[in-house]
This record gives sequence, structure tokens and C-alpha cells, in this order.
Amino acid sequence: MPVRRLRLTLEYDGSGYHGFQHQNGQRSVQDALERAIRRVTGEDCRVVAAGRTDAGVHAVGQVVHLDTMTGLDTETFRRAVNAVLAEDIAVREAAEVEAGFHARYWARRREYHYRILNTAIRSPLSRFTSAHVAKRLDETAMAEAGSLLVGEHDFASFGGKMWPGGSTIRSVKRLSVVRQGDWVTVEIVANAYLSRMVRTIIGCLIAVGQGDLDVAGVESILRGKDRGLARWLAPAHGLCLMRVDYADTQLFS
Amino acid sequence: MPVRRLRLTLEYDGSGYHGFQHQNGQRSVQDALERAIRRVTGEDCRVVAAGRTDAGVHAVGQVVHLDTMTGLDTETFRRAVNAVLAEDIAVREAAEVEAGFHARYWARRREYHYRILNTAIRSPLSRFTSAHVAKRLDETAMAEAGSLLVGEHDFASFGGKMWPGGSTIRSVKRLSVVRQGDWVTVEIVANAYLSRMVRTIIGCLIAVGQGDLDVAGVESILRGKDRGLARWLAPAHGLCLMRVDYADTQLFS
Repeated sequence: MPVRRLRLTLEYDGSGYHGFQHQNGQRSVQDALERAIRRVTGEDCRVVAAGRTDAGVHAVGQVVHLDTMTGLDTETFRRAVNAVLAEDIAVREAAEVEAGFHARYWARRREYHYRILNTAIRSPLSRFTSAHVAKRLDETAMAEAGSLLVGEHDFASFGGKMWPGGSTIRSVKRLSVVRQGDWVTVEIVANAYLSRMVRTIIGCLIAVGQGDLDVAGVESILRGKDRGLARWLAPAHGLCLMRVDYADTQLFS
Repeated sequence: MPVRRLRLTLEYDGSGYHGFQHQNGQRSVQDALERAIRRVTGEDCRVVAAGRTDAGVHAVGQVVHLDTMTGLDTETFRRAVNAVLAEDIAVREAAEVEAGFHARYWARRREYHYRILNTAIRSPLSRFTSAHVAKRLDETAMAEAGSLLVGEHDFASFGGKMWPGGSTIRSVKRLSVVRQGDWVTVEIVANAYLSRMVRTIIGCLIAVGQGDLDVAGVESILRGKDRGLARWLAPAHGLCLMRVDYADTQLFS
């Protein structure tokens, strides 16, 4: 058999994992997925993901690629991997792609949603999939502050470089704050992110919503380009990687 | 202080509990709640619930009553109990009620929702709060079968007596089947239920939706009044007690 490159779309509950990426001695989504693929194909396989989600962060549209010599068709492969995966991970789609496809480098846009339950009383049934903020949030101020971050900016204040000497410039395509009753959802789409950038931005927006920071404060943090300026970090369990778009592929359309 | 009767409205994630009611050697919601109240008031308290949910069944509107000598106002009591409760249980409301109020006997209507994810692929993020059915469900047939059960009937085929010699007649006020995309939700409102009645009804409706049982079959099960006829039981984790209505009280209006 020739080597084939597959693209998988994943959903996972990040609660039980120390993030997507392999780390010695910790449970990772990557390890669980690679183990499941090994059980199906017998191959010592490595997967490469579009986004390395932090511990506790969820995904409904994570994308990975891998190379395999298996002769299984993609649908049989998907079912077989799902059958041996733990209940907190599922392969939603499997497709064969051209050999040059790269889940990380070919990704053009990554969309994350952050769910906030804005009620006086915490919700047991939502505790793993949202953050709870008791104080009433001003979603209009949050949206105004968020709009300052849209566009190409140096986000050095909001996150760490992904590798030494790497750029801190990223392009935020859309940032919206939507209230539906007691729920406030922040949706953010960017070409890519710095380390902890989404949770730091959300942390700042929650601070704005609570009146602890104003819109001008967010602007001066952005202009300051200093990682020490944005000391807020929203909890991981409110965050979910919704989808990854590629140049010639529209996923979950 | 005089004795006061309190009514509490509870939300809980039933995943970690062997049902609401105390059972020797098993984790129950009742035990966890009584322990929390004891920590707050020092009293050896007993709570009485509107509905004794099974293991794995959730609630957002369970109602209990209890008697206490505490001098704490209801809001302080609610906050204090929530502060010592585990994260999977929360008191949403606390109110002082007349001495004769009884959470079970005064309840007129209990509303349950059952959530079904009707997709080829299971969903890790919804695995504790819905049942997964891969085969496409015919929600129109389910609704038609469900409508046969509305009204006052002898539900002996669908559940066990709550006590020896007890009646098997119950009054279903409303039963609706709603599809929204991949989600099918069954909503049922009745004055009260037999043991396992909701999950047996849902199990039958899923069988109808999958084509394993027809509407006439449901009618003959109902007419047969024989517990051996309805051998379907939907899994507990899709079920949630939404609200309990009292004669003079409209909760969650």
C-alpha cells in the first residue's frame, strides 16, 4: 500500500486531559488518539493538530492529520477508531487529503467560543462546559473592548510566543459578544493565536464586563506590547475550539 | 426559634449519584444535601423530595422541603448550603412555606425532558446529558404514539407501583416530541409517575422512532396493563426533571 495522508475532525471533552499535546506522564488527547489508531492499524502513528488546546479546553472541530499505510477506507477507519477511543473523544469526520496537506500550517482561520453563565447561582449541569460569573456583565462594553482587538495587531501583551524568536503579530478576523438570557458567549476567529491568547483576551473582556477594566484600559494594554500588562486568564473549561478553516476546505459548512 | 418549613429548588448532575433517595452504602443526592444542611445549621435534618429520580437522572427543578430551627434568612441559608455542597448540586431557590406544605403530596405536575442526540456519531461533550441514537428517528411517529398516552390511563404496563397496593393510574397532561436539527427532545408532564415510567415510555417511543414498534403496538401495550409488555428502558442520563408545579405556586415562571 502507498502512504496516505488522512485529515480527521475531532470532538473531545477536555476535562480529563492535560491538553491536546503529548506531555510526559500526563494524559493527553494526542496520546489517546495515537493509541486508538495503533490498535486499529498496528502502526506507530503521530498526529499533528491545527491547535494545541490547553488542559481542560474542549473541541468540536479540532483538525489533525496523520500518515498511514492502512488499506481501510476512511469511513471504516473512522468507525474503528471511534470504537476503541474513550467516550470523551470522537472522530467526527475522516477524509483522505493530498500529501502536502498540513493541519497546522494550512489552517487559515481558527474559531473559538467561550461560554459564560452569568447568574447569581452556579449551575452543576454546566460546570464543565462554561465559566460562571455571578456579577452582571455589561456585554455592550465587552463588545466595544473586543472590537479594538479586531484586525492585525501585535498581541505581545496577550500571549506568549509559540517558539523562541517567533512573531507576536496575529490577525483577529472577528470578535463578537452575544448575550442570550443568562448566557454570554464570546466568539473569536483569528488566523492563529499566541500561547494562552484566547483565555487572556476573554479574561480581559470579563474584567471589562464587571467594571474592573475599561475600554481605554484594553487599548493601552494592546499598545503596551508587554506580557505583564494583561494579568487576567479565563478558566479553561469555558473554552471550545469550534472549527478550523483551510484555504480550499470549508469544514462544518 | 420556632420550627420553619423551607422549600428548596435544586439543580443537580445525577452522574455521580445512585439516585436522589438515600440508600445504604451508595452516594445519594439526599445524603449530600442533608450533610450540607447539617454543616450549616448543626441540625440532623431530613429532606422530602417531589420526585425520587433514578441513578444518573438529572434535575434543574427538583423541589424538596425540610424543617429547621435555624434563624438564618432564606437567602443566607441558600448561599451557605451552596458553599458547602459539592459542585454537582446547587440550591437555586429557598423559600419559607406554610407548615403544611409537602414537596411530594402537594405537587400537581412534574415535567421531565428527555434529550436524544440523533446522529451517526456519538458526542463526547453531550455524553452525560443525552442519549445517543444513531439510527434516524421518525419524530412524527413518536409524537403520534406519545399522543395515545396523554390523558388519565392505567399505566401498569409502563411502570411499577410506588408502594404495595398502590394505584397504577396516572394522568399525563402533555407529551410532545420536538426535533431541532440532530436533537430530539421528548417533553412529558404528568400529575405523577410510576417507578421507571418515564424511561419506559421514552424507551417505547425510541423503538417507534426506529421502526421496531408501531403506534398500534404502543396502544396494545397500554391496553394490556401488564408490566411484561414494555421491555424498553431508555438510559437514565438523557433524563432531566425540569420543574414541579404546586397548586398555588408557579415555579420558574
